[in-house]
Amino acid sequence: MDASALALSQIGLAGLAVMGQNLALNIAEKGFPISVYNRTSSKVDETVSRAQQEGGLPLAGHYSPRDFVLSIKRPRSIVILVKAGAPVDQTISALSQFMEPGDAIIDGGNEWYENTERRMEEADQRGLLYLGMGVSGGEEGARRGPSLMPGGSYQAYENVRDIVQKVAAQVDDGPCVTYVGPGGSGNFVKMVHNGIEYGDMQLISEAYDVLKTVGGLSNSELADIFSEWNRGELESFLIEITADIFKVKDDLAGEGELVDKILDKTGMKGTGKWTVQQAAELSIAAPTIAASLDCRYLSGLKEERENASRVLEDAGIGRPGEVLLGRSVDKKRLIDDVRQALYASKICSYAQGMNLLRAKSVEKAWDLNLGELARIWKGGCIIRAVFLDRIKKAYERNRELPNLVVDPEFAREMVQRQAAWRRVVGLAIEAGISTPGMCASLAYFDTYRRARLPANLVQAQRDLFGAHTYERVDRSGSFHTEWTKIARQSKPGKSFGSCLS
Amino acid sequence: MDASALALSQIGLAGLAVMGQNLALNIAEKGFPISVYNRTSSKVDETVSRAQQEGGLPLAGHYSPRDFVLSIKRPRSIVILVKAGAPVDQTISALSQFMEPGDAIIDGGNEWYENTERRMEEADQRGLLYLGMGVSGGEEGARRGPSLMPGGSYQAYENVRDIVQKVAAQVDDGPCVTYVGPGGSGNFVKMVHNGIEYGDMQLISEAYDVLKTVGGLSNSELADIFSEWNRGELESFLIEITADIFKVKDDLAGEGELVDKILDKTGMKGTGKWTVQQAAELSIAAPTIAASLDCRYLSGLKEERENASRVLEDAGIGRPGEVLLGRSVDKKRLIDDVRQALYASKICSYAQGMNLLRAKSVEKAWDLNLGELARIWKGGCIIRAVFLDRIKKAYERNRELPNLVVDPEFAREMVQRQAAWRRVVGLAIEAGISTPGMCASLAYFDTYRRARLPANLVQAQRDLFGAHTYERVDRSGSFHTEWTKIARQSKPGKSFGSCLS
Repeated sequence: MDASALALSQIGLAGLAVMGQNLALNIAEKGFPISVYNRTSSKVDETVSRAQQEGGLPLAGHYSPRDFVLSIKRPRSIVILVKAGAPVDQTISALSQFMEPGDAIIDGGNEWYENTERRMEEADQRGLLYLGMGVSGGEEGARRGPSLMPGGSYQAYENVRDIVQKVAAQVDDGPCVTYVGPGGSGNFVKMVHNGIEYGDMQLISEAYDVLKTVGGLSNSELADIFSEWNRGELESFLIEITADIFKVKDDLAGEGELVDKILDKTGMKGTGKWTVQQAAELSIAAPTIAASLDCRYLSGLKEERENASRVLEDAGIGRPGEVLLGRSVDKKRLIDDVRQALYASKICSYAQGMNLLRAKSVEKAWDLNLGELARIWKGGCIIRAVFLDRIKKAYERNRELPNLVVDPEFAREMVQRQAAWRRVVGLAIEAGISTPGMCASLAYFDTYRRARLPANLVQAQRDLFGAHTYERVDRSGSFHTEWTKIARQSKPGKSFGSCLS
Repeated sequence: MDASALALSQIGLAGLAVMGQNLALNIAEKGFPISVYNRTSSKVDETVSRAQQEGGLPLAGHYSPRDFVLSIKRPRSIVILVKAGAPVDQTISALSQFMEPGDAIIDGGNEWYENTERRMEEADQRGLLYLGMGVSGGEEGARRGPSLMPGGSYQAYENVRDIVQKVAAQVDDGPCVTYVGPGGSGNFVKMVHNGIEYGDMQLISEAYDVLKTVGGLSNSELADIFSEWNRGELESFLIEITADIFKVKDDLAGEGELVDKILDKTGMKGTGKWTVQQAAELSIAAPTIAASLDCRYLSGLKEERENASRVLEDAGIGRPGEVLLGRSVDKKRLIDDVRQALYASKICSYAQGMNLLRAKSVEKAWDLNLGELARIWKGGCIIRAVFLDRIKKAYERNRELPNLVVDPEFAREMVQRQAAWRRVVGLAIEAGISTPGMCASLAYFDTYRRARLPANLVQAQRDLFGAHTYERVDRSGSFHTEWTKIARQSKPGKSFGSCLS
């Protein structure tokens, strides 16, 4: 089909790797005629052929940017799904020369939000609209219904609203899409979603580790436990697939489960790193998410770890879990404790992600609606979970909620789970197996709920060596003290604190 | 004195806040005639007057950039000590117009290393040499002998080598200065020094917290303990000043010690944040340093913490430490345990910092000498400590040491201290007081020494939802499996793992 075909498409999609193909088929299946384009023409043929196989979906393949653009009804909406960075610029450059004022570019990749804001300005100079739209759900989500996080031009959103609302995953309270906010907010929200996803995966792997190493559970038992957990408060995509993973046998080595044969090295992409860097930029504590990244880095150092294990065991440290040998473990209680520890750790991780979003929203005046963001994550995306409905409700109860753990419902849950949580982390520490994510969540929780921290000492140190001054608990003002002089010259010392403001 | 004076100065220093004044007096005191300049002339007068009061040190004040520059012997070396960022550019712009090819600019501020590299190129275009020189030790160090971390033009370093070697702190194996490396390496090393400093301060505050909250120790007991610790393996500036801090009485409220009256909010500057961001950029786990930053952010949320404390106590969580009430605490053992936990946590924190330096050195081809960097931190700077000599020796034994904890000596120490370390962290977790830094160090240690991590599960999850593929422990290649299909369709499942490479 070429641009001279009678019927114009309602939307276009450029970039036909698996995600792009699947999203295009999804759109076509929902009844919206779509034009697709890819620089490598074989991908176009592949997509067209899939559309035909799936019963003749209304999808037209194009081999030139010009034909592709001209085949779309004005005002045009063109979704780009290519690798973030330079490929996006190249694609925009190839397509935009044929686009006309009022047309819209929608970048569906995991793009750094500032790149989106730059392109938005460039597009604006040519009269084009721009959306940075986070798409989560992997290949499967793209095909069956993803969670969509569009941010940028509201008009561009309005132009595709009908389409994205049908294409997105559907949950009880609507489609998993909303207009996130202006600027690069859609990309930023997707970035934090991914950071939270890293945290969830890390916490699940720690639960697995404790159950396996301390509890001695088999893969078959683990499959049953994760299936059971998926019927309760932890119900979520990641718990569900974890249960599946433990069921898969290894066909190559011929015995046992495949999970045991997988090398313990975890790859990563840019969004997790950006989340941690943005948290630092905005002075937001996100230790659980950071711990999940740290574990990915350390997982990559497989040879170093094997060497460290040898060196330290030779020095007499004992193998992980060894200290518990011979101690009888109450499996049932351990399993129940781990479930609670996982849930409580998860609440803290989401609290970190949500507060990162809020801090950015304030900085950029995006006016993000945190409850609505929790809602659109309820379906389609990797972190989809029943528990997100509770987060949505917490923000509905109090849009200014400073932290999830002080929502009355979550506070009650934290209190109910704290004993189990402390037992699991304590046991792991004693056993010498690390639970960095659970530890980080617990330290976050115990630090945040502490009316008085030992930060007074740190501030005294800073005043002593850098004259950074300090405030007092009992009166206002800014003070400086000659600590060393007083401590070393007079007995009993007097502080001579002087008010500087 | 003006530029027409007969004797030219050997060096110049611009920027006469307290650090600048003190460094200038230090240089003059070591016998090097120095010219000083500041935009605000009263600072020049102040410095000249201090030089006179201190017995007529060879220091000449100047009120115009031209006179200042021309008063210095060629090739000129001019140290700038102003606020990082735009003020540095302004100062360079004001001075460099009077400088001549072969002259050198030495920025002594806490500058972002990329700014230094940019200025280095700009300077090079005018034939000027450039050094980014980290200066640590606070006001006192600047006056009495700081630790200096110059990086950039080797010629510029050679030109001031005699001066900086006399001005720096002196330790048993030489002055606390070395040519760090090319480019912005001097600033980068100073940045990581500061990150390590944040970690040290956090860990000390946690030791204080455990001893006070769990052990019930008084400030007077704490002063004694820190003094005692300062005679052993923990001997360091920060432990020493902590002992001093506990001795200072409060003269405003009239009773008790001042430390208890200081508000528990901790300020911060840019270098700690940059350290965390660079660790993420380079895929280096630095959780202890990150935890110290997180605690500073959370310390700032005083009102939120007070509210969280109320909400969660109303929900029944119990006050921090309450669970231990009525339990008898063996104070002597607790103190000894905390000392060991502090030391072991510190080793891990330095391991993180050192590995961050190494990663950057590889990326930028700086060829940093980690042992020599540990050596120049032995005196003058805020993290100066006896323990740094052991780090120096560890890298002398093995310059390619992948991690401090696998050095034979440190490995032995970790093994000796692990039981105490686990007891302290476990107790804190049980008591509900957080020790985020100690926890982070322990999790780092236990993750790094683990030959097999649960990262296999994470990689299986990634392969399931994103087709990211995985490697196997028993054969090479890259594999992908249709996990869900197999888990849900066939019993018993077969993996159909396919090799992709």
